Amino acid sequence: MRIVLIGASGTLGSAVRKELATQHEIITAGRKDADVQVDISSPESIRNMYQSIGQVDAVVSTAGRTFFGPLTELTPENNEITILNKLKGQINLVLLGIDYVQDKGSFTLTTGIIMDSPIIGGASSAIAGGAIRAFTQSAAIELPRGIRINNVSPNVLVESMEQYGPYFPGFEPVPASRAALAYRKSVEGAQTGQTYTVY
Amino acid sequence: MRIVLIGASGTLGSAVRKELATQHEIITAGRKDADVQVDISSPESIRNMYQSIGQVDAVVSTAGRTFFGPLTELTPENNEITILNKLKGQINLVLLGIDYVQDKGSFTLTTGIIMDSPIIGGASSAIAGGAIRAFTQSAAIELPRGIRINNVSPNVLVESMEQYGPYFPGFEPVPASRAALAYRKSVEGAQTGQTYTVY
Repeated sequence: MRIVLIGASGTLGSAVRKELATQHEIITAGRKDADVQVDISSPESIRNMYQSIGQVDAVVSTAGRTFFGPLTELTPENNEITILNKLKGQINLVLLGIDYVQDKGSFTLTTGIIMDSPIIGGASSAIAGGAIRAFTQSAAIELPRGIRINNVSPNVLVESMEQYGPYFPGFEPVPASRAALAYRKSVEGAQTGQTYTVY
Repeated sequence: MRIVLIGASGTLGSAVRKELATQHEIITAGRKDADVQVDISSPESIRNMYQSIGQVDAVVSTAGRTFFGPLTELTPENNEITILNKLKGQINLVLLGIDYVQDKGSFTLTTGIIMDSPIIGGASSAIAGGAIRAFTQSAAIELPRGIRINNVSPNVLVESMEQYGPYFPGFEPVPASRAALAYRKSVEGAQTGQTYTVY
């Protein structure tokens, strides 16, 4: 398959790339260090990405910045970081990408355990996760031409524990390579509307 | 209690007002026909609302426009109607309202059955519902001074069947007065982080 992977330079994205590259042609997209530059907070940038890439069999997103910080410091303004990127950015990858995905192709987005198991500082991230999960389930019943959509909700990653570990007390970290399997399941499998939790 | 009810002029809001007004002082807020004018798509308007109302014991929102229409007609632009109103509007009522809510007071927001049981045309509404549900759960563990937060997820209302019935085949409509009970449970009860489904 021909797959565009948005966010390939991140910790999770690198593992997903490694998992999928054994069997598929991967086009990486992202703000930097990618085959194609894209800023998913901008619909225009997403449109340009698809125009330059053309038809694909699958769109996989491990992208999406969020605001992380105490609820009492969360404001309409800094919450916008999450809304523009992880929330609307990923949704717009779908809305603007439908015409570029082949029949029976797929979209795979990323949510995260915070939407199920809240942590201090995670309210903004949770907003994006909950939105993407509900969108996945709804979009699945309307996507044309057999196109599928799922999302993967990883636990905190082993590779991120040094940086984020203190925020996830008692969480059982998973290797990025294990989370990456769920993306393969979504891309090569036949299910749609699913949230694959890797907890 | 002194309660501000945003969206009081709607079908659901009217029923919630009737349910709560027997025991509480209700200040209505909304774009029209309300004690205080507010457009929740504008953080500035929300700030002005709270400044003019002052301290309250509870904030109840039955407000929030959404875009309703086929997924293939959903665009970054018309999806913004939902993002600005039902999603960010309700979240900003919380973020900007914390300082105006008394100790042990509460926020009660509105989601909807579409986030759990998708219908054709409902993807944008589902995004808002999923976001608000996850936010509710996360915010609950961080709100200061014993302030609580819940959301109510009503089924399609009996009163709305003439207009929306065809979009909800086989759904069992509930009277707005029954949905309104869940708002009383949230306001007068002691639970937090809950999604009260009225299905």
